[in-house]
Amino acid sequence: MTEPMKIAIAGLGTVGTGAFRILSENVELLAQRSQRRLEVAAVSALDRSRNRGINLNTVNWYDDAVEMAASADCDIVLELIGGSEGVAKQVCESAIAAGRHVVTANKALIALHGTDLAQASEKAGVSLAYEAAVGGGIPVIKALREGFSGNRITKVQGILNGTCNYILSAMRESGRAFDDVLTEAQKLGYAEADPSFDVDGVDTAHKLAILASLAFGCEVNFDDVYVEGIRSVSADDIAYASELGYKIKLLGIAEYLEDGIRQRVHPAMVPLHAPIASIEGVLNGISTEGDFIGSTMLQGAGAGAGPTASAVVSDIVDIACGRMTPVFGILSSALKKLPSVPMESHSGSFFVRMMVYDRPGVLADIATMLRDHEISIEGVIQRTRSETEAVPVVLTVHETSEQSMAAAMSKIAALDSVQAPFQLIRIERT
Amino acid sequence: MTEPMKIAIAGLGTVGTGAFRILSENVELLAQRSQRRLEVAAVSALDRSRNRGINLNTVNWYDDAVEMAASADCDIVLELIGGSEGVAKQVCESAIAAGRHVVTANKALIALHGTDLAQASEKAGVSLAYEAAVGGGIPVIKALREGFSGNRITKVQGILNGTCNYILSAMRESGRAFDDVLTEAQKLGYAEADPSFDVDGVDTAHKLAILASLAFGCEVNFDDVYVEGIRSVSADDIAYASELGYKIKLLGIAEYLEDGIRQRVHPAMVPLHAPIASIEGVLNGISTEGDFIGSTMLQGAGAGAGPTASAVVSDIVDIACGRMTPVFGILSSALKKLPSVPMESHSGSFFVRMMVYDRPGVLADIATMLRDHEISIEGVIQRTRSETEAVPVVLTVHETSEQSMAAAMSKIAALDSVQAPFQLIRIERT
Repeated sequence: MTEPMKIAIAGLGTVGTGAFRILSENVELLAQRSQRRLEVAAVSALDRSRNRGINLNTVNWYDDAVEMAASADCDIVLELIGGSEGVAKQVCESAIAAGRHVVTANKALIALHGTDLAQASEKAGVSLAYEAAVGGGIPVIKALREGFSGNRITKVQGILNGTCNYILSAMRESGRAFDDVLTEAQKLGYAEADPSFDVDGVDTAHKLAILASLAFGCEVNFDDVYVEGIRSVSADDIAYASELGYKIKLLGIAEYLEDGIRQRVHPAMVPLHAPIASIEGVLNGISTEGDFIGSTMLQGAGAGAGPTASAVVSDIVDIACGRMTPVFGILSSALKKLPSVPMESHSGSFFVRMMVYDRPGVLADIATMLRDHEISIEGVIQRTRSETEAVPVVLTVHETSEQSMAAAMSKIAALDSVQAPFQLIRIERT
Repeated sequence: MTEPMKIAIAGLGTVGTGAFRILSENVELLAQRSQRRLEVAAVSALDRSRNRGINLNTVNWYDDAVEMAASADCDIVLELIGGSEGVAKQVCESAIAAGRHVVTANKALIALHGTDLAQASEKAGVSLAYEAAVGGGIPVIKALREGFSGNRITKVQGILNGTCNYILSAMRESGRAFDDVLTEAQKLGYAEADPSFDVDGVDTAHKLAILASLAFGCEVNFDDVYVEGIRSVSADDIAYASELGYKIKLLGIAEYLEDGIRQRVHPAMVPLHAPIASIEGVLNGISTEGDFIGSTMLQGAGAGAGPTASAVVSDIVDIACGRMTPVFGILSSALKKLPSVPMESHSGSFFVRMMVYDRPGVLADIATMLRDHEISIEGVIQRTRSETEAVPVVLTVHETSEQSMAAAMSKIAALDSVQAPFQLIRIERT
């Protein structure tokens, strides 16, 4: 066997500690699969004294992660600090500049600085691997970058955030409201104290931008991702969805279109029996469409110490075996700058829920305004009646453009008999 | 860019023609992903004149595939002939001996001669890649060999044969009998004229033996796979399964146990809402359990020209990029000879369907015999009554050993009131 591969770990939170554990517990197995021993040589974290349940006695401790990345005696630096700027970014840059391979779980960093880091790593002749950044332990980066390499990929979509999927699944099962379930998720450790990155769709957008770049061979473009989160999804919406044969999921969808790519993150109604609808709780699922492979789906735990650290270690084994792949599947000089197709030009079916005063002619008015925008009604549900209070009316409409829908909705919103705001959820049948 | 990578294709059936098409149609894309051009330099097939819808003018034709593998000017030989012996095996052996990489879709060959071929390819320093051998376009070999490399894998199971899954799905949807649906599947091209490899479970067993070797780091051992096919599954069984909340699937299951490994292929009842139950028609789905990653499932098209050829081409791109992995994930010298745990020691729940003459005390006799073998009844369905003819009785029993079950069944079969043969289907809840 060749020399051991020496690893420095920057960040000993959930994922860093998990990676340390795998490297200790599966040491013989990993030596066989890597054809050399993998050794943790150095670590850096904020608090040296914290009890993490791992033995750090034999490794070099660094107070400064950036210094460690630049100067520790190691072949690979694991950046497991997180955040798109600051120390995390500096650790990666220093490691690359010093000719060390980098493995990271940092989706924000790759989504915002992926192209620059790819260029730097190619120049230095080192790997920049980030299997753990999307889909936890699901090997989706490897699938897109290597497994599907024979295909022109036209679409990649998925449930990419376990927190949101847990909340939506729990709301559906219990009939409870968003805030209530969020509080519970926070207590269970499935949601952060500040949940905005997750529930506002930012985390999903980071991951989607990475998947789009890999799938379509283009520069990663987080800024142009259309993002809606799940805060506005109500227990009523979920109940109506069930009644109509749908589940509501937060989807990230990237499409390769004639005039560019569209990346969008929003709650969507998916048919109850669609494969993606079976992804429940904290699981993630990613489906890919390619010209030869057809449609595939990969599912599994999208977060957590074990799965995420498993992905980190798989990157280490690849590097130890000398298996290198360009950061986004092709050399960074070949990455295209593909135009972003705006959300306005998207066409699809919609679910609309609004509060309406039950006066004569109201539904006729609404139907007329939809017809004026060439929008065809698929179904209407109005269950309660009241002479004094607004009652919920639910509409589903056949495929139409976002633009027509927005125009019709603003006309309808101006009606005296209709109360703003109203809920609009896209229906995704594929 | 470096020199083009030259490819020789042995066999121009569905998969060979599909691979040729991908290499022609996605030529620019593949050049980017491979960082060099991929060129088909030579082909060999039985019939030169057949119209395959591809242009063979610029490639060298060989009448003898083995000669081509040994002497054509090429870097990679694709063995897409099939069959575990004869020309297919010779093509692989000649190519390896001549220092060429080999890519194959041949599960029978790998299941029966994988260890020998792995040794030969390591000695020659060439790749032997076979992503297309299991799960069509689903990158399950790559996932097990590279994506899950951080994990000790304890179980891999799946729906590995699209023909059987199509037949069982169609039987459930239509209520029709096996023979009837098989004939239809043959007409639609989903089943071979001689369907025995598929419906008797041999194809699934080939694939399972490969997955077990990859998952557990052991020598591939097809001979010890326990195999039952789907010919005996009746429309009644499927109807009862639905009533009890199950679907019947042909599963391949490989387990890493304390005393060795168990590999088994048989029809199984899986809960209606289990992820594996959602794999319908010609799709394949493979789930893996690892110590850190938990449970994952990969699903997609398990057969067909496009998906299978997509897997072949992904292997070519890996080789062109210099990404090499030992054939079974670790060097062949490290592959263990793990003992096979026989089916007799398996424990599980069972579904039993038998024809019983409705005489006083029959059910009491059956219940007593089960009790004598410490088998506990979960439920009983007897719907029809007849004083003259045998009527179906269905039992489900709680977890017990295969041995106890077999002993009890042979006692029950000896009863005058019970008609042989009866149906026994294992229930798999995980």
